[in-house]
This record gives sequence, C-alpha cells and structure tokens, in this order.
Amino acid sequence: MFSERLKRLTPYVPGEQPQDREYLKLNTNENPYPPCPGIADLLRTFDTERLRLYSDPVCGRLRERIARKHSLLKEQVFVSNGSDEALSFCFYAFFDSLYGRLLFPEYTYSFYPVYCDFYGITYERIPLDREFRVDLDGFLKKGDGSCGAIFANPNAPTGTYLALDRIVWFLENYHREKIVVIDEAYIDFGGESAAALLGQFQNLVIVRTFSKGMSLAGLRLGYTLTDKELIKALFTVKDSFNSYPADTLSQLIGEIAIEDDLYYAKIREKIIATREYFSSELERLGWFVLPSRANFVFVSKEGIPGKDIYLKLKEKGILVRHFDVEGIKDFVRITIGTRDQMARLLSVATCLFP
Amino acid sequence: MFSERLKRLTPYVPGEQPQDREYLKLNTNENPYPPCPGIADLLRTFDTERLRLYSDPVCGRLRERIARKHSLLKEQVFVSNGSDEALSFCFYAFFDSLYGRLLFPEYTYSFYPVYCDFYGITYERIPLDREFRVDLDGFLKKGDGSCGAIFANPNAPTGTYLALDRIVWFLENYHREKIVVIDEAYIDFGGESAAALLGQFQNLVIVRTFSKGMSLAGLRLGYTLTDKELIKALFTVKDSFNSYPADTLSQLIGEIAIEDDLYYAKIREKIIATREYFSSELERLGWFVLPSRANFVFVSKEGIPGKDIYLKLKEKGILVRHFDVEGIKDFVRITIGTRDQMARLLSVATCLFP
Repeated sequence: MFSERLKRLTPYVPGEQPQDREYLKLNTNENPYPPCPGIADLLRTFDTERLRLYSDPVCGRLRERIARKHSLLKEQVFVSNGSDEALSFCFYAFFDSLYGRLLFPEYTYSFYPVYCDFYGITYERIPLDREFRVDLDGFLKKGDGSCGAIFANPNAPTGTYLALDRIVWFLENYHREKIVVIDEAYIDFGGESAAALLGQFQNLVIVRTFSKGMSLAGLRLGYTLTDKELIKALFTVKDSFNSYPADTLSQLIGEIAIEDDLYYAKIREKIIATREYFSSELERLGWFVLPSRANFVFVSKEGIPGKDIYLKLKEKGILVRHFDVEGIKDFVRITIGTRDQMARLLSVATCLFP
Repeated sequence: MFSERLKRLTPYVPGEQPQDREYLKLNTNENPYPPCPGIADLLRTFDTERLRLYSDPVCGRLRERIARKHSLLKEQVFVSNGSDEALSFCFYAFFDSLYGRLLFPEYTYSFYPVYCDFYGITYERIPLDREFRVDLDGFLKKGDGSCGAIFANPNAPTGTYLALDRIVWFLENYHREKIVVIDEAYIDFGGESAAALLGQFQNLVIVRTFSKGMSLAGLRLGYTLTDKELIKALFTVKDSFNSYPADTLSQLIGEIAIEDDLYYAKIREKIIATREYFSSELERLGWFVLPSRANFVFVSKEGIPGKDIYLKLKEKGILVRHFDVEGIKDFVRITIGTRDQMARLLSVATCLFP
C-alpha cells in the first residue's frame, strides 16, 4: 500500500515532550523565559472572527518587519511553519544529486540526513575538527563533487561557533553557483549572523527560527533570508505544498516579537551569563564542556557513558538529551535554563556523578 | 542554482486574499460566521509562557477528541498544518508511479496535479459525468493501471456530491490494496462522511479540515482518518519533514472547536438554508446552478464568459472565483455567505447580468 519513497525514510526523533509528569526540561533547547509581554495583550483582545478567514499566504506584514530588523528587502524574506519546514523546502529547491553530493558536518542537526532521504539527495558528512567545530577546510576539499552545503552556526549539538571571517573565507573559496545554507537557529546567544553577507554572496541562504531566541517554540514560526530569486524559488515550493503555512495568530505574534528587541536582548543576556556560570561550574566539577555560543552545552564526564548521565538525571526528574551515535556517545546536550534551574542540576550532578 | 525537482513545479494558485480593500469575499469558501465562542475565552486567559515550550508533536489530546467525535481510535487520527499538508503527506506516502497512475477527476481541487508534480507521480484525469459529478465508473475502468485514487466529496469546484452507497460500491469493486483518499473538506454542508466505512475498507483514507465547517481557515488545522497502519505511515512522513506541524494555540483551539457540536450544527444549517435560497433565486434569474452539497455553488449564465462575471463582480467589490480552464471557463464558483451578503450579490448580479 505504500510508496517506495516511504520505505527509504528513517524519521527524525524529536526530543521528548512529556505531556504528563513535571520534568525540568533541559532537552530541547527551549528558552526558560516567557516570550515578550505584548503577546498576551494581543491575545486578550484578539477578535476570533478573524480566524474564519484564511491567513495571509505571503505573510506580508511579518516579512516586512523581519526585513527591517535585518536591513533587507521584504523580497529577501520567506516565512515558514517553523524553520524545519524552511529547511525542508531548501533541500527540495536547492540540492540535487545530479550535481553532486550535499555536504554537511558529521555531527550536526540530525534532521539533515532525514531531509536527504525524504527527497532522495545523496550526501557526505564532513568530520568536525579536533575542537568539534564545523571544518570548513574539509568542506572545501569536497567542494567539486558537491551540489551544495549546509551547516549550523552555532552547530548543534556541539554548540561550537564559527566567526564571520571564517565564513567569508569559505564563501569566497566555495563554488559561487552552489547554495550554502547556514542554519542560524542558535545565533541569538552570542554569535554574529551571516545575514550581513547576503549582499556579497548570492548563493547564501540563512534559516532562522522564533523558537529559541524569541522563546516561541510552541508557535512554529521560522524564516529564511536570501537573494530575491532564491526566495521566489521557496515560494514556488510552498505553493506546491501548502499555500498557507503560517496561521493568522502566529503571524500576528511574530510581528510583535520581532519588534521587541529590548525584551529579547535582556533574556538572551541572562541566558548567556547563565551558560558561562554553568559551564565553569561544571568544569570545576571535572566535566568536559565544549565552548558554546548556543543556549545549550555539550558535555561529558570521564568514565560515565552519556546514556547513563541521561538516564540518571531523568530518574531525578531532569531531562537532557543524549544522542546514541558513535563518536558522541559520551556526551549529553544540556539546555541552559534559568540560573536556579542550572544550580539545581549542578547539585544533582554533584551527588550522582561525584 | 536550482534542483531539477524545482523546475517541474507549476505551483497552485490560491484564491486572492486581499489585505487592503474591503471586499465581499466569496472566493475562497470561507465560513461567514465566526468560530465557536469558547475560543475567545481561551485566548483571553491563555498563559503565553506556554509558547516557550514546543507544542505536542503528536497532538495527543486533539486526536483523542477528534477520534471520539468520529467513534474511532486515537490511533486512527492524524493532525496536520491544514488539510493541504495532510494531502501532500498522503501523496508522498501512498501514491507511486511504479505501481501505476494516480486517478483523480478532471475538474477537482487543482492542488492534486501540483502534488503529483511535487513528488513526480504520474496521473490520469477521469472526466466528470454529464451532471458534473465524480464518475466512479470511469475510475473503475482505469483501476488496473492505477496506483490509487483521490477525489473530493463534495467535489470542488463543482459542489456535486456522491452518496455513501455509491462510494461503498466503488470501494468494493476497486483494488483493496490501493489507497483511496476522499477529501471531505466540504462534507459538513449536507453530505454524509465516509468515516463510517473505515472499519470495512483498510485502504480508505479520509482527509478533513477545520477551515470550512469549523470556520477556522486562519488556523491551519486539518486531520486524516484511516487505518492505524496508514496513520503510522503519515507519522513517518511528518517526522521526516517537520516534527511539530501544529502549534500549541492551534491545537488548543481545535480541541475547543471539535467539541462544540451545537454551535457548529447551527451555523452549518444556516449556510445550507442560504445556499438553497441563493441557488433558487439565481435559477429564477436564468442562471445555471449545479446542485451543491458544499458551502459554495458553481454557476454560469448563458452568453457571459465566467471571466467577465468574475471581473465585473470584482469591480463592484465582490470577489468570486473563476478557473481559467477549458471546459469550466463559463462558470464561477461562489461561496455561500450570510443571507444578507447573498441578497446583495443577487441584486448586483441582476443589474450587471440582466
């Protein structure tokens, strides 16, 4: 009864979202602070009759505001049902095995190989460097046989970060007619966006999300910044898949969030400070902590398998994420919560893993 | 820079959604009545902090309530970002040219051929019968060379309806191992759902939406009812595309809407009564009106091209939908609004097309 397409799929497994027991959830990189206060005002007075009409299929107002924030044109912005949908559309539109293999880091967002299987795109994983950073030299070496490249900056689940000059160097030396997607889901926590490079490189695509920095994971809103012609291609894909991917409430909430820079700068700074505090405390306790520019840290403790760390913390009501993958099995990824939450985790960890 | 995939796409064109001028919008089959009152209560007191967490990726509570409404199991329900996303996933999972061509009606929801192009599925259009109904005899004749079938009941844009016994007859005579998708977007306006047949036919898939009958087009929520194993396949597709397609607010709003049978029965009855009134008035004015069980009518007036009807009504501030397609060019599709709105349209039409 099923298509051959279906048979080649091994779906992505999202982090646990327990709907019952109250866990300290540090497993899916959610923001510990509420979204900006204007959203509650909107909902309180929202006229629900508006929901009887379709939402704006091109997300005009939201795209305008996103463009303004990044000093770009509205025609350089695409809005999607979460950044996952945008990534999926990018894979569909820009990567084709006819022209080579897609390059991405060996350890990265585990949805990338899933999208490849979804659309039948062959790929090659480029090992991280010794410091667990995305190895752009490695990408360049495979550039000729590639149909494009995608990496996350900061990378997940490692949290490691590439500075902008490194990315410029890569874009200058990689093929100008092959697309490079940078997934900036975690750029808000101390990194510098490559959006500033869009004028220089027409083959650069930047995918971002409202989930992390904007504290709106439950809203499912993402966006893409790139050249006008590439945005048109994404619209073609959208209109061949689902004409109205972003609902009316999500668009309105997004419009409010994207403008409240003050509030969001404040909570991001808190998260960065907590990350630095938590990282140095963990190190003091003898853990290995990769330097992170994200709202999570990737950590290990000698002699304790990552799976044990995960399971023992879960028993104590704390959820972190473990990837049962050769090469990073020793690690767990821990989301940065509030300072109190991280202090609680530190004290539990001290007892469990002295 | 683009994939070969992209080059084969001719996107679906949704009905106009003007964001500026106030039109009488009778072009995208939106419900003229607001959604149920419980939704405003929810929004007024909604704790926006919940949005910082991801939404439930399996839509557990909503699926339970949908299942209860249809006397099915939760495992027989799949929730999506609008029914368009569900349709797209069905095309991905169930239809494969390796096994034959997909069958659908010649004049039907114009997204079906777009999905075929999106995934590279070959198809065959089966002409409607002389009364513009979906011709299931025609489907059966092509059954052997087919990989499955999809039709809308009531059909769009014709509004014509097939009774359940006709569908039973078709399912009994079509291949039991090939999937039949029935798109019931418009079933709430006087039709009988084929959901009652799911126990009998494991190859039957029913796709529904909150957009029309539930007056929630702006919410982007749809669902699929079918056999457990087929639902599992849809989950595999979802988790290879976008793990969290339905946001938290949409799920909560859907949970409220699906339970307010009383309110929705009332507004549907009003729409049905208005449709009958409008149809007979138009006929009295010399129009040809196809019998409709949907919240729209497909109509023509001898001697006047459909495009002219569309353009002249638009000039007067009334939007209807015209499909510039050979065979149905004479027609326009008019959404059923309130009785007052339809009376206004009737008086404008009397002047414009005496």
